[in-house]
Amino acid sequence: MNKKLWGGRYTTETNFHVEEYVASIHFDVELAHEDILGSMAHANMLQQCGIITVEENKKIQMGLKKITHAISKNELQFRIEDEDIHMNIERILTEYIGETAGKLHTARSRNDQVALDLHLYLRKQIVVIIKLLFCLQNALITLAKKNKNIIFPGYTHLQRAQPIYLAQHWLAYVAMFQRDIDRLKNNWTRVNISPLGAAALNGTSLAIDKQFVATELGFDHIYFNTLDAVSDRDFVVEFLSASALIMMHLSRLSEELILWSSQEFNFICFDESYCTGSSIMPQKKNPDIVELGRGKAGRVYGALISVLTMLKGLPLAYNKDMQEDKEPLFDVIKTLRQTLTIYSPLLKTLKINEENMYQATQQGYLNATILAEYLVKKGMSFRAAHDVVGKMVAFCIHKKWGLENLSLQEMQLFSPLISEEVYAVISIENAAGISLNALNDEINCCEQQQQSNHNWIDEKEGLLRSIDSKYGMILKRENSLL
Amino acid sequence: MNKKLWGGRYTTETNFHVEEYVASIHFDVELAHEDILGSMAHANMLQQCGIITVEENKKIQMGLKKITHAISKNELQFRIEDEDIHMNIERILTEYIGETAGKLHTARSRNDQVALDLHLYLRKQIVVIIKLLFCLQNALITLAKKNKNIIFPGYTHLQRAQPIYLAQHWLAYVAMFQRDIDRLKNNWTRVNISPLGAAALNGTSLAIDKQFVATELGFDHIYFNTLDAVSDRDFVVEFLSASALIMMHLSRLSEELILWSSQEFNFICFDESYCTGSSIMPQKKNPDIVELGRGKAGRVYGALISVLTMLKGLPLAYNKDMQEDKEPLFDVIKTLRQTLTIYSPLLKTLKINEENMYQATQQGYLNATILAEYLVKKGMSFRAAHDVVGKMVAFCIHKKWGLENLSLQEMQLFSPLISEEVYAVISIENAAGISLNALNDEINCCEQQQQSNHNWIDEKEGLLRSIDSKYGMILKRENSLL
Amino acid sequence: MNKKLWGGRYTTETNFHVEEYVASIHFDVELAHEDILGSMAHANMLQQCGIITVEENKKIQMGLKKITHAISKNELQFRIEDEDIHMNIERILTEYIGETAGKLHTARSRNDQVALDLHLYLRKQIVVIIKLLFCLQNALITLAKKNKNIIFPGYTHLQRAQPIYLAQHWLAYVAMFQRDIDRLKNNWTRVNISPLGAAALNGTSLAIDKQFVATELGFDHIYFNTLDAVSDRDFVVEFLSASALIMMHLSRLSEELILWSSQEFNFICFDESYCTGSSIMPQKKNPDIVELGRGKAGRVYGALISVLTMLKGLPLAYNKDMQEDKEPLFDVIKTLRQTLTIYSPLLKTLKINEENMYQATQQGYLNATILAEYLVKKGMSFRAAHDVVGKMVAFCIHKKWGLENLSLQEMQLFSPLISEEVYAVISIENAAGISLNALNDEINCCEQQQQSNHNWIDEKEGLLRSIDSKYGMILKRENSLL
Amino acid sequence: MNKKLWGGRYTTETNFHVEEYVASIHFDVELAHEDILGSMAHANMLQQCGIITVEENKKIQMGLKKITHAISKNELQFRIEDEDIHMNIERILTEYIGETAGKLHTARSRNDQVALDLHLYLRKQIVVIIKLLFCLQNALITLAKKNKNIIFPGYTHLQRAQPIYLAQHWLAYVAMFQRDIDRLKNNWTRVNISPLGAAALNGTSLAIDKQFVATELGFDHIYFNTLDAVSDRDFVVEFLSASALIMMHLSRLSEELILWSSQEFNFICFDESYCTGSSIMPQKKNPDIVELGRGKAGRVYGALISVLTMLKGLPLAYNKDMQEDKEPLFDVIKTLRQTLTIYSPLLKTLKINEENMYQATQQGYLNATILAEYLVKKGMSFRAAHDVVGKMVAFCIHKKWGLENLSLQEMQLFSPLISEEVYAVISIENAAGISLNALNDEINCCEQQQQSNHNWIDEKEGLLRSIDSKYGMILKRENSLL
Repeated sequence: MNKKLWGGRYTTETNFHVEEYVASIHFDVELAHEDILGSMAHANMLQQCGIITVEENKKIQMGLKKITHAISKNELQFRIEDEDIHMNIERILTEYIGETAGKLHTARSRNDQVALDLHLYLRKQIVVIIKLLFCLQNALITLAKKNKNIIFPGYTHLQRAQPIYLAQHWLAYVAMFQRDIDRLKNNWTRVNISPLGAAALNGTSLAIDKQFVATELGFDHIYFNTLDAVSDRDFVVEFLSASALIMMHLSRLSEELILWSSQEFNFICFDESYCTGSSIMPQKKNPDIVELGRGKAGRVYGALISVLTMLKGLPLAYNKDMQEDKEPLFDVIKTLRQTLTIYSPLLKTLKINEENMYQATQQGYLNATILAEYLVKKGMSFRAAHDVVGKMVAFCIHKKWGLENLSLQEMQLFSPLISEEVYAVISIENAAGISLNALNDEINCCEQQQQSNHNWIDEKEGLLRSIDSKYGMILKRENSLL
Repeated sequence: MNKKLWGGRYTTETNFHVEEYVASIHFDVELAHEDILGSMAHANMLQQCGIITVEENKKIQMGLKKITHAISKNELQFRIEDEDIHMNIERILTEYIGETAGKLHTARSRNDQVALDLHLYLRKQIVVIIKLLFCLQNALITLAKKNKNIIFPGYTHLQRAQPIYLAQHWLAYVAMFQRDIDRLKNNWTRVNISPLGAAALNGTSLAIDKQFVATELGFDHIYFNTLDAVSDRDFVVEFLSASALIMMHLSRLSEELILWSSQEFNFICFDESYCTGSSIMPQKKNPDIVELGRGKAGRVYGALISVLTMLKGLPLAYNKDMQEDKEPLFDVIKTLRQTLTIYSPLLKTLKINEENMYQATQQGYLNATILAEYLVKKGMSFRAAHDVVGKMVAFCIHKKWGLENLSLQEMQLFSPLISEEVYAVISIENAAGISLNALNDEINCCEQQQQSNHNWIDEKEGLLRSIDSKYGMILKRENSLL
Repeated sequence: MNKKLWGGRYTTETNFHVEEYVASIHFDVELAHEDILGSMAHANMLQQCGIITVEENKKIQMGLKKITHAISKNELQFRIEDEDIHMNIERILTEYIGETAGKLHTARSRNDQVALDLHLYLRKQIVVIIKLLFCLQNALITLAKKNKNIIFPGYTHLQRAQPIYLAQHWLAYVAMFQRDIDRLKNNWTRVNISPLGAAALNGTSLAIDKQFVATELGFDHIYFNTLDAVSDRDFVVEFLSASALIMMHLSRLSEELILWSSQEFNFICFDESYCTGSSIMPQKKNPDIVELGRGKAGRVYGALISVLTMLKGLPLAYNKDMQEDKEPLFDVIKTLRQTLTIYSPLLKTLKINEENMYQATQQGYLNATILAEYLVKKGMSFRAAHDVVGKMVAFCIHKKWGLENLSLQEMQLFSPLISEEVYAVISIENAAGISLNALNDEINCCEQQQQSNHNWIDEKEGLLRSIDSKYGMILKRENSLL
Repeated sequence: MNKKLWGGRYTTETNFHVEEYVASIHFDVELAHEDILGSMAHANMLQQCGIITVEENKKIQMGLKKITHAISKNELQFRIEDEDIHMNIERILTEYIGETAGKLHTARSRNDQVALDLHLYLRKQIVVIIKLLFCLQNALITLAKKNKNIIFPGYTHLQRAQPIYLAQHWLAYVAMFQRDIDRLKNNWTRVNISPLGAAALNGTSLAIDKQFVATELGFDHIYFNTLDAVSDRDFVVEFLSASALIMMHLSRLSEELILWSSQEFNFICFDESYCTGSSIMPQKKNPDIVELGRGKAGRVYGALISVLTMLKGLPLAYNKDMQEDKEPLFDVIKTLRQTLTIYSPLLKTLKINEENMYQATQQGYLNATILAEYLVKKGMSFRAAHDVVGKMVAFCIHKKWGLENLSLQEMQLFSPLISEEVYAVISIENAAGISLNALNDEINCCEQQQQSNHNWIDEKEGLLRSIDSKYGMILKRENSLL
């Protein structure tokens, strides 16, 4: 009989299908680094509080270091019958250092241990994702500066509305991603809290020091309530919500890039290295990346609903249902990391068809609003001016003319307030120019924001690196961004 | 430069991150069996229509058989730069049989190919899942027959309502799972349709025979509209909706099993082999399986939302976003297969605490309704009877008595219509018994349904097996249910 | 103290906020018609079974008829303290006919009553919605016949792919809506089942005749299991899933209409009566309707998730949570009815810019695939042909030519297999024409489907009308479609 | 022909169904107060910038005040053909003050106007909801102080785990609601930003002063990017996400109250004034409110998905789809306000069955963990101690004893480390007591938090009141909380 670490009261062996069904090792192996880090800090605290001896702690630390090393070399064999990463590591530690390993789980339950791992893991991922958003913003700001003089049609309802600077468009996304960053910074404050010491749900009768571990691991706070510490997954849902908004923003950007790269718009060309072809149609050059980027919004919305649904109506404290929090979380993190990574170079290699953009502003009466505002300046009420210009547009549609093709006399038939300077007023350049000052201010403002983002990232990376290096942790490849 | 099969018009190499991002081989390898089967039938058709020679077809068939064999031995190396299962298999086929492999993709696009694979794959999975539901129903019917005389409290609002037979409870779930089966049967009629021949979106100028392939592969129909054939994912969403309902039913059953196995209810005990323990609390025996079964409802709801969101607002015909249909689908199928597989033995090994169930019917005035109906039979209006019995209950609560503890005189103070036989009427056995005939009818009806389910499964399994065996396909382990 | 009909055992009055919170009368008034119909049939059954007298039944029927009349004249005052439509009608009936009203609720609970009302209500709405889908299909078929000779670019990835007939595009939507109809027909078979007689959860000790009521009301079956009868909301979820797919289809159609009406595509013009303007920009003509039609997909997806989430983990039988099924259901029905109603005339009044559509086929190498297939017919393998044509396209892009602008000699440099007839082969008309036969077949097939849809609608409308007229029900305005 | 305010270029009348379909007046009337407030501030700005005269502004202000008054008296008739609240108010203003009304819309579009209204509306609702959460926390803290000495079983997996203080349980919810408050405070910082001046999408050529309006209306910032200003609905999604978490918390609390009020747990009784009965079962006392509170989680999750789905893939800037943001938002606000309002008194009137709670700690070996920890203190490794106590539990289950019923000799058979003081150690009181200090600290901490919450609410209420009173706004009844 394969003895479980929790098997004291049991007389029957666990069914094989059950083992497979309840096991989480195939996905929570992702938390190996955090689990070991948390155990190292926990063991130090146990020694500090006199619960284990210096000698025992030394053994444990060495064993855990050996495991870290083995993981980084891909030499470990995790087993389904040990259920999860926590039990697997304890089992391997026992193989390495013998009975002393049995002291590591003192004053701790998997309930607070898995919560700890998740907090440690997510806070690191938040920094990575903020960094990727920051890079994407930089790519957009660079584009904005480069495209500062390109005029193209601003749209509402996908109908041409007013001529605007292309730069304004890129900066709209900088603003969106800044809100995403701000939400993740808010999220961080609720992630960087230590649940350790809550044990199963009610703490422990052993004289531990929760603050010691929290300080060791760089946490800002400790959970006050032990039941809350083990049953809280708000921080996961909050991250998934913030991620859903990130993907929503990317889906909007993607939609526009797909439209703009269609033959009909023909505003941009993707670099060939960022496109793929068709198995049957030899001429095709498809914007696969941005289609995927758009489609993956669904994936992230789904993950959000998964975890929200799972948590609905769960009594306190820990329930096994909560094991279902990890796969959606990991999948969303991977989706964000991949997608954000690829969008920056994709934008940088974009070819802008400036001339087509400008041509597009020539049709669709994009200067109608500025003409109405001209009439307002001449003393007409806006509602009356709107009506007058509406009638001029209807007349021009009939004639297949632009507003600028009307002669002054023709214009004056609609309103005698109009005079010669109208042609300068309604030029596309003048109409786009109403936002010129704002545009320059905006670029300045974005660059200040980037400085502040940079500082935040620096500070958090410094914190995380210092802890990792104190504990001699070897970073996983995919965290190399840090 | 790594040449793509679609790379004729391209001059630049695909970016590495792009390859990784757009590749689907890490998950659509799941479709290998179906892809090869579809290609074999397609090549037969090409020969039949004189588009390739008998010799060429022979080569292709042998090459594909060799690939099947290699896959079953796990000897193949799929490559990310070949994007997906379709291109990987074509590339390997080229390695095996040379240039002739280039004829296989004649009159076909990945757009109709991937649709074909999905149709072939899902129709098989539907049969597997119906079979698992059928087994679960059998487990419940067996329980119902075994528990036919066990009386326990029926609940509404989780308050004890009326005494019922436990068998009725199990059969309610048989009814739910039958609707699930019926929905999947409906789904099958929209899955078992052939999209092949739609090519990219507009068919082909080559003289192919769509019906030939459809017949070869056992499809009931052909898609009439080629754009629809390649852009339709309704059948996936429909399957996910049906799955969401299955999981919803399982979540309800799970909730009840969790409640019933609590110390407070103490109606059932899980077999130890279907439970797990706690890392910290030595006494714990946790209903992990049914908690996971409950929690996984979230996972399936999430998958449904993923695919629905992805499809929202997509123009015709194929868009790359649609590649995001597969992972949620595969995950849901795995979830259903695992969960349904484990619930049958879990139910079979359940220990019922009959005595506790019966005791629970003794408190809570479960005979109040039958007492009111007794008064109705004596001529009182139901509304008045309800009121009278309500007052009797209030009196008894105050006295901490059951209704049956009232003396006849006491009862008659509430209504002179009551006479001696009331005690027999309001006995728990009598109150539960009102559904006795229905119960027997119901068991008969369920057994008839099972016969009809059995026939359906038999027929479909026969069809799928005959096609597989005609093409010499080796079944994957996880499809061994078939 | 305001006496509740269920208040016998209560000594304290319900809190006012509670009354407001738990009341459903503000939305379930929608079920008034069905509630009365169900009560009439129930009372007839009670008489039939000798539970009430002929005289009593007569009184009840007259009272209910009077209520119907009062509702149709908008003369009734429903009260929040009577909670729901069922209790309100019983209270009013008591005011009309006195104590006899108290007999109506005999052998019935609100649990089976509300289920009955929902079944009656939804089956009618399904017919209405199928009829609206049928009309929309007719509008599309009419367009298809009218646009049979219009060629325009078929797209994949929103890139021009191959020239196709516009008719094919419209018919793709006919196929989608047909699946929607088929799903609703499947749904109907699980809606048209009678739950009455299940009472609270365990039936009743009174000698009722469930089949009598079911026959009276035109139901196909009776629920076998009483717990299932009162706790089943599958049929609601199933309807919402089918609705989500309908809205998904409409969102795809809407997206295309929005794209096509942009100045860039300029393929269609909406009639002015189906557009709105801007408060600030005098020139704007916005496709508001189809934008709303696209956006409302979110509304319906949300409703689906609401009800699925609500049902997750609910123990049997009835729980108050289930009251939350109605508002999303009613909202989705309204959304579908409004949206489907408006899309038919919108399509009928659409102006097609045939010339622009044709021009669009001239650029983008839409004849590349047919050229590759031409090479296949000449003996080249498809993969090689794909590569050759890919190179020709690359060359032409460089020259800014179409494939048809290459001289024969130039073409033969790419492949000596090409000869003079190639120009006829790669003409856009020829390339679009590959689906011409299929197109005619498809139109025939659609017309046959419409006949079969028509028969189904006729049959069901006949059934529902006959029952309404037997019971003298006055139809609500919004059901006048029936 | 019914002239639209935007109808200058139109020659055809809008179709009636279109008017009904696109109109939002039936729900955005909810924004009337904010719309008028925004218009008053806008007109002041126009005067300040010399765009309208003092006289004109005076007329406009008086007209708007008159409309406010008429609304508060319910005297206004809004019209569907005026589409929305903005156009309705402009139309009424024109009726009141004539042509001058036409100047109000100068330098403004409905796009920035509706954004402004939503920002103004939501910031107020956030304060209301934080206040309700604050009150609910107070109710829980009061309970915690009152129940400080009540011991009951803490659960994991709904299995009894360890004895805990009931107060700890209440405080876990205080912690959850505090995170909800913190999230809403974060949300506020992104809500309290002014979009006015963005006009349709590109600002205006008129010399306006955005900062003036923002200051007038108490906004913290102005949107930097005009496209973002009109297309941003992040703040709505963020609010809906925060709301989904609130409802998730309430669903967990509700589930527990439902469990605890079942006859099996019998830990609590709801006051009769917070319960309802059954139409058929005279004895029933159902926890309807908390069932609804649990079920309404679905409603709010659904609203979140609605808006996320709607926004997916929308190009910039404004699209009509975005009109679908309001109904889900309003519904969620109403749901939260109703639900939070009712839970506070429901908790305050709860009867706790202290004795039953205590009895429940006597079974289930809740002292097993403290016994294991006792062995750890005696020098055993935790893993060994867990195993020893597991075996003792198995032995006791067999004997149907508690651990405390073992004699010292019997205990020592399992481990010689055990001595006499063990009985004091494993007493339920001692086991629960391990969190006693933390509990007192926690209550102090909660009270400090409440002070800080109180200050925040005070400050924001002060701000909002001062603006309302400056503009002479009459508060709507449902905002009277402010």
